Amino acid sequence: MIVEHLIDYNRENRIGISETIFCENKSISQINNICKDLDTNKTTFFTRLKEDQYKKLTSSIKKKLLYNSDSQTAIYGKKPSINKSKANIAIICAGTSDMPSVLEAQQTLYISGIKSDIFPDLGVAGLWRIQKYLKQIMKYKILIVAAGMDGALVSVIGGLVSLPIIALPTSTGYGVANKGTTALNAMLVSCSPGISVVNIDNGYGAASAAIRILNVIKQ
Amino acid sequence: MIVEHLIDYNRENRIGISETIFCENKSISQINNICKDLDTNKTTFFTRLKEDQYKKLTSSIKKKLLYNSDSQTAIYGKKPSINKSKANIAIICAGTSDMPSVLEAQQTLYISGIKSDIFPDLGVAGLWRIQKYLKQIMKYKILIVAAGMDGALVSVIGGLVSLPIIALPTSTGYGVANKGTTALNAMLVSCSPGISVVNIDNGYGAASAAIRILNVIKQ
Amino acid sequence: MIVEHLIDYNRENRIGISETIFCENKSISQINNICKDLDTNKTTFFTRLKEDQYKKLTSSIKKKLLYNSDSQTAIYGKKPSINKSKANIAIICAGTSDMPSVLEAQQTLYISGIKSDIFPDLGVAGLWRIQKYLKQIMKYKILIVAAGMDGALVSVIGGLVSLPIIALPTSTGYGVANKGTTALNAMLVSCSPGISVVNIDNGYGAASAAIRILNVIKQ
Amino acid sequence: MIVEHLIDYNRENRIGISETIFCENKSISQINNICKDLDTNKTTFFTRLKEDQYKKLTSSIKKKLLYNSDSQTAIYGKKPSINKSKANIAIICAGTSDMPSVLEAQQTLYISGIKSDIFPDLGVAGLWRIQKYLKQIMKYKILIVAAGMDGALVSVIGGLVSLPIIALPTSTGYGVANKGTTALNAMLVSCSPGISVVNIDNGYGAASAAIRILNVIKQ
Amino acid sequence: MIVEHLIDYNRENRIGISETIFCENKSISQINNICKDLDTNKTTFFTRLKEDQYKKLTSSIKKKLLYNSDSQTAIYGKKPSINKSKANIAIICAGTSDMPSVLEAQQTLYISGIKSDIFPDLGVAGLWRIQKYLKQIMKYKILIVAAGMDGALVSVIGGLVSLPIIALPTSTGYGVANKGTTALNAMLVSCSPGISVVNIDNGYGAASAAIRILNVIKQ
Amino acid sequence: MIVEHLIDYNRENRIGISETIFCENKSISQINNICKDLDTNKTTFFTRLKEDQYKKLTSSIKKKLLYNSDSQTAIYGKKPSINKSKANIAIICAGTSDMPSVLEAQQTLYISGIKSDIFPDLGVAGLWRIQKYLKQIMKYKILIVAAGMDGALVSVIGGLVSLPIIALPTSTGYGVANKGTTALNAMLVSCSPGISVVNIDNGYGAASAAIRILNVIKQ
Amino acid sequence: MIVEHLIDYNRENRIGISETIFCENKSISQINNICKDLDTNKTTFFTRLKEDQYKKLTSSIKKKLLYNSDSQTAIYGKKPSINKSKANIAIICAGTSDMPSVLEAQQTLYISGIKSDIFPDLGVAGLWRIQKYLKQIMKYKILIVAAGMDGALVSVIGGLVSLPIIALPTSTGYGVANKGTTALNAMLVSCSPGISVVNIDNGYGAASAAIRILNVIKQ
Amino acid sequence: MIVEHLIDYNRENRIGISETIFCENKSISQINNICKDLDTNKTTFFTRLKEDQYKKLTSSIKKKLLYNSDSQTAIYGKKPSINKSKANIAIICAGTSDMPSVLEAQQTLYISGIKSDIFPDLGVAGLWRIQKYLKQIMKYKILIVAAGMDGALVSVIGGLVSLPIIALPTSTGYGVANKGTTALNAMLVSCSPGISVVNIDNGYGAASAAIRILNVIKQ
Repeated sequence: MIVEHLIDYNRENRIGISETIFCENKSISQINNICKDLDTNKTTFFTRLKEDQYKKLTSSIKKKLLYNSDSQTAIYGKKPSINKSKANIAIICAGTSDMPSVLEAQQTLYISGIKSDIFPDLGVAGLWRIQKYLKQIMKYKILIVAAGMDGALVSVIGGLVSLPIIALPTSTGYGVANKGTTALNAMLVSCSPGISVVNIDNGYGAASAAIRILNVIKQ
Repeated sequence: MIVEHLIDYNRENRIGISETIFCENKSISQINNICKDLDTNKTTFFTRLKEDQYKKLTSSIKKKLLYNSDSQTAIYGKKPSINKSKANIAIICAGTSDMPSVLEAQQTLYISGIKSDIFPDLGVAGLWRIQKYLKQIMKYKILIVAAGMDGALVSVIGGLVSLPIIALPTSTGYGVANKGTTALNAMLVSCSPGISVVNIDNGYGAASAAIRILNVIKQ
Repeated sequence: MIVEHLIDYNRENRIGISETIFCENKSISQINNICKDLDTNKTTFFTRLKEDQYKKLTSSIKKKLLYNSDSQTAIYGKKPSINKSKANIAIICAGTSDMPSVLEAQQTLYISGIKSDIFPDLGVAGLWRIQKYLKQIMKYKILIVAAGMDGALVSVIGGLVSLPIIALPTSTGYGVANKGTTALNAMLVSCSPGISVVNIDNGYGAASAAIRILNVIKQ
Repeated sequence: MIVEHLIDYNRENRIGISETIFCENKSISQINNICKDLDTNKTTFFTRLKEDQYKKLTSSIKKKLLYNSDSQTAIYGKKPSINKSKANIAIICAGTSDMPSVLEAQQTLYISGIKSDIFPDLGVAGLWRIQKYLKQIMKYKILIVAAGMDGALVSVIGGLVSLPIIALPTSTGYGVANKGTTALNAMLVSCSPGISVVNIDNGYGAASAAIRILNVIKQ
Repeated sequence: MIVEHLIDYNRENRIGISETIFCENKSISQINNICKDLDTNKTTFFTRLKEDQYKKLTSSIKKKLLYNSDSQTAIYGKKPSINKSKANIAIICAGTSDMPSVLEAQQTLYISGIKSDIFPDLGVAGLWRIQKYLKQIMKYKILIVAAGMDGALVSVIGGLVSLPIIALPTSTGYGVANKGTTALNAMLVSCSPGISVVNIDNGYGAASAAIRILNVIKQ
Repeated sequence: MIVEHLIDYNRENRIGISETIFCENKSISQINNICKDLDTNKTTFFTRLKEDQYKKLTSSIKKKLLYNSDSQTAIYGKKPSINKSKANIAIICAGTSDMPSVLEAQQTLYISGIKSDIFPDLGVAGLWRIQKYLKQIMKYKILIVAAGMDGALVSVIGGLVSLPIIALPTSTGYGVANKGTTALNAMLVSCSPGISVVNIDNGYGAASAAIRILNVIKQ
Repeated sequence: MIVEHLIDYNRENRIGISETIFCENKSISQINNICKDLDTNKTTFFTRLKEDQYKKLTSSIKKKLLYNSDSQTAIYGKKPSINKSKANIAIICAGTSDMPSVLEAQQTLYISGIKSDIFPDLGVAGLWRIQKYLKQIMKYKILIVAAGMDGALVSVIGGLVSLPIIALPTSTGYGVANKGTTALNAMLVSCSPGISVVNIDNGYGAASAAIRILNVIKQ
Repeated sequence: MIVEHLIDYNRENRIGISETIFCENKSISQINNICKDLDTNKTTFFTRLKEDQYKKLTSSIKKKLLYNSDSQTAIYGKKPSINKSKANIAIICAGTSDMPSVLEAQQTLYISGIKSDIFPDLGVAGLWRIQKYLKQIMKYKILIVAAGMDGALVSVIGGLVSLPIIALPTSTGYGVANKGTTALNAMLVSCSPGISVVNIDNGYGAASAAIRILNVIKQ
């Protein structure tokens, strides 16, 4: 006997973040079956949905999914309504290789109706790039800072601005980059105080942490 | 030749957190020398100052330090003025073994003039304890949640409240607790979304992350 | 010279668990050769037999194998006779991604003639789900609790019920989930006492541990 | 403000294991304070209480603690009443170096009123020792098997008996024994099926897992 | 400029082991080029030559290679002359999954003109299998003992025989088998004294260590 | 909004090394887009550009890239002018498997107009090979020494020559070679003093470190 | 109940190595109790017996122990009779820091009546030292080669001699020497074939492996 | 028999660095014995000589040692003659906790007659400090850059100057600073190209690498 599956639609009310289906390593039939249980009047978010997986889904299900291949995310059911005013959140990264995580973060914010801006090339090897945009960055309310390799970008920005910084280590790099572990650890032991960190390549988590902060700013 | 030492008093203006002297593994003479360079009209914070170290400092320096042995912290120079209204920050922990990190967090908040409350015994092995205090906890603006061993407390609270949660892994435990690494990793891969995490036993960092959020709430 | 291969049919008499062929990384010709040595009057169990491997086996052998693709297991020879009474064992998991290990456990119990029930969606991010089924769960004799990521489900259930709990960490998750190592370690250092743990994704081992307990309950 | 401390006396009713105070790294004043909150009409168990810590406690508290230095445990309050019949549980270990964990397990059983026997020298380097006692061992209901280094004792016994086996890795050894991690991992990947494992040196956990099995045997 | 490539034909005279080409991760053109430099009057051994790689080599080179797909080895040039008398070396393994490394060892001995026998199924989960063959095993001069998972076979045999034992850990297993690291470490900390160990899956190295011992027995 | 991409052409003036695009894990469209932003009058270097990636690029972009498949590098824009005099830098490696990293180093030097010579087979298992070329090696100004497995080549050369040695660990090997980590660590703890080390397989980094030394020799 | 302790005197007959008591982390009372069970007509060997431990033993026991502080070993009971002819075994090490393990190996051989010679300073940073003694070293039957840090000594000697080489990694070094793990791994992946390895600092194990080889040479 | 000890005085001629005695974990009698073999007309350098060890040496030996407690180094025999001109080497560090390694580097340079300057407080949390000294730093020939924690200082300086940079990771920090491993790895994967790295806390190695560069600049 298998007891009923349980969708947690109440999650949005409890913590302000939609029910989300994590698709990595799920089989096509598992994803199809989950979709059958979903309510189209509610919003369900899908992460780590590879293009390969998406393409193999039942066509009736595919039609109901708004798929975004760059971020490997999809939206099922009710679409979010974006507040048209300016973005409160900046997502800063060291280079192009960090973009998949950055875009996962942006989509996660989007599904909660939150706008964000991306600064894609501020790696510290060319410090002038941070200096060029520093004043502009200071005008946001929350920063998500993504970097792989040495993760040094987080420490430099952390020493320059007073905003909440959510550090997002990425798996960019090879050898002792150790699939993002070095960036993760470097961010956790940053010499700049008050950096908090999410799992490697976890754009979804970084955005969710930002949403929790917005929850309390709005109060 | 040794070029001059550089105290970063401007840090408070830039990022809202006082210049802080990290004392772990510093020799007595190193700490004495640093103190000689400090300005008594400004606030300098000391962390990881063991009672042993404190007692061996020059007596004239000891007089200028407000030492707190439970949190192994000290304050030099101008004392903080606490806002007398109710605390905005709750520091929750799984059990008594986590208290040194919890108290380091509380002192770090105190030096910035911020009140906080501690909930010391909410480990999930007795779930009724979280249930007893849940409504009260939801009234704060930010939660710092400390736990060692399996770090499960963070996931349970993360699924129940919408507040910003700064997870503070502690080195409580033995064997594969791996000096806090298991709690750290479990918090980073929490099944509850939007948890952000600081280094093991880093009460100072958790409090600093909370200060960054308060910086933006106050705006 | 290669000395004869040795099938351990006596294993069932000694420890109550059938001879089992672990197929991961075995070549097709190795599996074919092993099957040739088997006795169809006895029961032999196959684990980690991928659909790809199964399909390439000699067709005469394939006919003798009862293959189950969801659990990647097969039965060769005598089929088990299931006791029709209610299940003594509940297999609880955090979410759909844990199902392959859960089903391997269920099949392993099945081959020993033991019924089990599956509770597939009790992750602690939505605590109401455990609360909904808690009374029902307490009526079983043994719990197998599977979870990946932070493994927190085990600690929460461990604090609520007095039954034997066999914790089954799964490789669900990414980054510092470390292919199940974080869940494994978190379960080993669970703040709830008396949890014992098997290898990552080892549904077969979890079920075998349950069988050992049933061996002694039956006495 | 520090919210009240919460003793979990109800734990014994919920899961059949007494409230337990883990003393490792707790300060003397922390332990003294906890004792002040305890109820002498109830049983509280203390683990990892070093002789050094015990000796420094307030003398009035020391009088109320029944301390056992070999297992570094103590009992506060109501003493357990032992069932005088023969032991149901055998604790087997590879050699003398494993005894501290073995004795912690025995004391944990004792506090729940359960007798156990210890077989102290059955390491596989001298296989005749297991063979000498094998029939005697088969008469127990549950085995706790402790070993450090290679942990091979567990696999050998696991292939010979059908009883529940709780593997207890110890930190005996040096170099790549890695403080018990090698024994732990070897036990988790034992070639004998159905072994479940607790944390390194966790005699308390192994005994608690045995208690959970006894809970269900008794039903 | 690239300075000349240097084949070490003198190796056999110096240490008694032929020049060997390790093919893992070498490109087809690299292997083709190396073969062009070889002397067909001398013996060169190839290891880790996958069937895929072998098939893509230039056909003229393929003709000169005596390829063995089970062990992924090949011989180029002069073939070894085997001493027809009985084998001095037994290669014992826990199960079929260990055979690729076992066969690499056997081929390495063969290229030096040494016979060996394989005992393929002596895993300790069924101890009767070791007991059945123990007397026969004691008649060899050197044992190579291969095992994955917990590596316990080595400790059991090490406690029963006085022969040199070269332990060969294999990558058999999953989860905390850690691709052979657990077997390797367990063998290194074996409770049976005098076991020496080679790298994971290194059948070539185990055989070479045996050859060094035969070098000195022959003196 | 995505803020503009920022090419760091000034890098060559600041540190003497061209702007470089690291292509590992970049998608085809990401690489195409980066190329569109490049200035053909300046030199841009591409590393880790797999033949597969290269072939899929837009044909107009492919025409502008000078691709080298052995080193997986490419040059875009202005070609380097090589100083025709003799090479100042020797790149020494243990064997053919190390060549991809060696060639990446050579191409990196080439793009800065620097000649280098390669000694491809000097592994210490045949010490006569180092001895044969030692005098010749001593005539260079800088040595890059690449090795995988045990990395012992670096220690032997480090004890024989006074030149700057940049150690380049490679991922050659298997098992506890740990994808180059063992070579890396062995080089870092070399018993020969004054060896400095770059990341595993980082031929680009080794060459860049050599360029920094040439920068100061030229002054 | 604690079942009797079991001394394995038969070990010497089975495998040619005396019963040995490993004293690390054993308490004084544990060692005293073991000694009481020993037979003075038989030989028992003690390893890792620190001077501190030795001094605290009961004086009657101390008198029966022949203690050697440099190797931290002791002999109880019958003394070995040394064969006066020349040594068959050379123990080579990189430097003085490796001597404790080297001396443990020498004492282990001594208790089995075997002479050995020590070459204490042959580290590869000064290659002339190996070259000076190479011919002399080639005259032994077995080499034990100890080194910490990079372990490169083993690879160099392994490429020069055809003798059995037992590699003994030591914990000499700091940082990424990782308490001997780097030397261990480097020896396991040595580019010289046929090296077999024992645990870090395991002089006892290296000598025991040599004894196993002598067992078969003597036949 | 113990073959003669071998002092490598010729090292200075071969590689330009004096024979050095590494004292960590050496016993007092070992150090005393080494000193007896030394030639007072030559220079021998001692590293990692703790004040405790130094004080316990024979007084006649202590007189011949020029001991420096801050760097834990000593000089035996001929003193170096310092070139009085300005320093060519700058040693930059993030903060006071890095000073022991920095001073070990400075003493190592001093024994070779080389002057160096120290910049002790340039951590990136206060970026203005690097900016203040950047022009001055650019005037040296070689930089040694020491940092613990995140090691970010190296990446920032690496992006700003063209000089050779020897990165010296220190063990400053706690938790996932992992005793310097995080700084080491971050430096190895620095986003600034051409950084080469030495072992954790290896001031001696960093200085020796600088000496090798000076060897070739002087040519």
